Amino acid sequence: MELPLQIIVKKLSDLGERKAIRLISNILSRGDEAVGIGDDCAALDFGEEYLLISTDMISKKTHVPEIMTPWQIGWFVVAINLSDIAAKGGKPLGLVLSLGLPGDTSDSFLEELTRGANVCATTYDTSIIGGDTKENPSVTICGTVFGTVKKDEFMSRKGTKPGDIVAITGTLGKAGAGYYAIQSNIENDEILKGLLEPKPRINEGITLAREKVVSSCMDISDGLSSSLYQLQELNNVGFEIEKEKIPLSRMLLKLAREDENLDVYKYCLHFGGDYELLLTIPPSEFEKMQRSVEKTGSHLTNIGQVTKGNEVCIIDGSVKKILPNEGYEHFR
Amino acid sequence: MELPLQIIVKKLSDLGERKAIRLISNILSRGDEAVGIGDDCAALDFGEEYLLISTDMISKKTHVPEIMTPWQIGWFVVAINLSDIAAKGGKPLGLVLSLGLPGDTSDSFLEELTRGANVCATTYDTSIIGGDTKENPSVTICGTVFGTVKKDEFMSRKGTKPGDIVAITGTLGKAGAGYYAIQSNIENDEILKGLLEPKPRINEGITLAREKVVSSCMDISDGLSSSLYQLQELNNVGFEIEKEKIPLSRMLLKLAREDENLDVYKYCLHFGGDYELLLTIPPSEFEKMQRSVEKTGSHLTNIGQVTKGNEVCIIDGSVKKILPNEGYEHFR
Repeated sequence: MELPLQIIVKKLSDLGERKAIRLISNILSRGDEAVGIGDDCAALDFGEEYLLISTDMISKKTHVPEIMTPWQIGWFVVAINLSDIAAKGGKPLGLVLSLGLPGDTSDSFLEELTRGANVCATTYDTSIIGGDTKENPSVTICGTVFGTVKKDEFMSRKGTKPGDIVAITGTLGKAGAGYYAIQSNIENDEILKGLLEPKPRINEGITLAREKVVSSCMDISDGLSSSLYQLQELNNVGFEIEKEKIPLSRMLLKLAREDENLDVYKYCLHFGGDYELLLTIPPSEFEKMQRSVEKTGSHLTNIGQVTKGNEVCIIDGSVKKILPNEGYEHFR
Repeated sequence: MELPLQIIVKKLSDLGERKAIRLISNILSRGDEAVGIGDDCAALDFGEEYLLISTDMISKKTHVPEIMTPWQIGWFVVAINLSDIAAKGGKPLGLVLSLGLPGDTSDSFLEELTRGANVCATTYDTSIIGGDTKENPSVTICGTVFGTVKKDEFMSRKGTKPGDIVAITGTLGKAGAGYYAIQSNIENDEILKGLLEPKPRINEGITLAREKVVSSCMDISDGLSSSLYQLQELNNVGFEIEKEKIPLSRMLLKLAREDENLDVYKYCLHFGGDYELLLTIPPSEFEKMQRSVEKTGSHLTNIGQVTKGNEVCIIDGSVKKILPNEGYEHFR
């Protein structure tokens, strides 16, 4: 009797997004000049500056809540691309958009999407300078953003040091509040905007980078716990986050007052979509940086510290626990 | 009795790709520094150079023949992006890829696709420096390429002048021969490669640009007739193309010898996918340019001339006819 040949083929749903990216990264022959894959942006040597490039694709079926308007889809794809430039301290130069659309897409859908994308770009003092439309079975939008940053101002994901303060811009839970509102059929545009119209932290990123004291930085696209684990793995450090210090979204707190079962920290620790900046910084520099960020109209909050070892912990009152890694990952 | 409100909403399948791009272009607030939408690439002012950026998306369902391997899909998406840089005379700096993949995609599909993309990039002395993988209901790959060109060497689509010679690099009908072979179940890898592994004309583009005498240039992604009509509309000129001068693909001629019903000119005039460069050039400069291009191992052929007026004509022996605009357009 012949045994059937067992061919073990892994699927992306087994691998997960980050292993898939590692697989790709191992195959590619990178040019010497590229800072490369694994950071939020690719960075190319351009004299005294880096040219930053990042690309992000969204699909209506897998990333876009039913309630999202075409205008908001346009805003969203530009915002999440700009957020990658913000995380490196860069100034955006422009974006190009590729629109994959079914043949029966209406011209008003295309118009509104373009308007939303354009408003987001101009809000952050940049513009959409090119693009492409192609037929696609499902609405798929790919944005690519490019920007520049002075080499000595570039904020890498690498460089986190034990003893550094862990800080975040703005508040967490805005996207979670929007998600909760959709699930609970709560109609409140201001709450929904937290999820559907995220604000890339371009000005905050530029302000932080200018001081040249940030040891590492990334944007919190997939949730705080996921982001901390990514920095932990890359830098071989640990974290102690103080739960009470995490700045919470006003909207999420409002919803929690009306529903005692709403778990605020689930949305702040493990829910993606807030696009705030997560950074580490020597303690002696923190207060000066905080004042600088406040001048942009935003906030910078100390939420804990970098530790030796490899544990990502959360301190809740007098109890210290391991923070589980439960953020969003594609294909999982 | 109330009459139903008639809301007239156009679909992209009515508009077609080029009107859709015009609709987008009218909405966008462009920065002053952008050469902008409508050319093959966006071009940003960067001191003595332009930074060129172009983006192209393909979807497995709408653009990829069933027979295409994952390696070839990877090659293809990089090649068509590089072709846009070639058309402007640019040198590529790098590419980023966004891969939209269903959760059940195998890791070997991802590996092979990445290998094909990497080989194409390194063949043209550049590299893939970043990317993104996201879940998508159907395989969708978006590439964005960036490069540089000296400002005085930039080859625009605008600038075609009556009296100029119309020239193309290489031969036409390679992609058509591949398509015909698939339709006719002819297994011949060399013929299929003409369609599935197009060669971007990077070296030819750089060589042409260096001489600073090309009055306009574009790549023939959607077929010769379609490309001529695009230049005609943009430059308000006419064309007279001499049918007998068009350099034909050796593979297409071989197939035509075996099938007397094969219409060679259908594939050379109205079939996309050859990615040769179409350019216009003053007659006094043509021979020198031809010699320069031959040094790259390629060819430059005079196929006709630019005329006053707005007609795109083809001369077949002693008969002059209007050349119909039958190239490929998305959503049509």
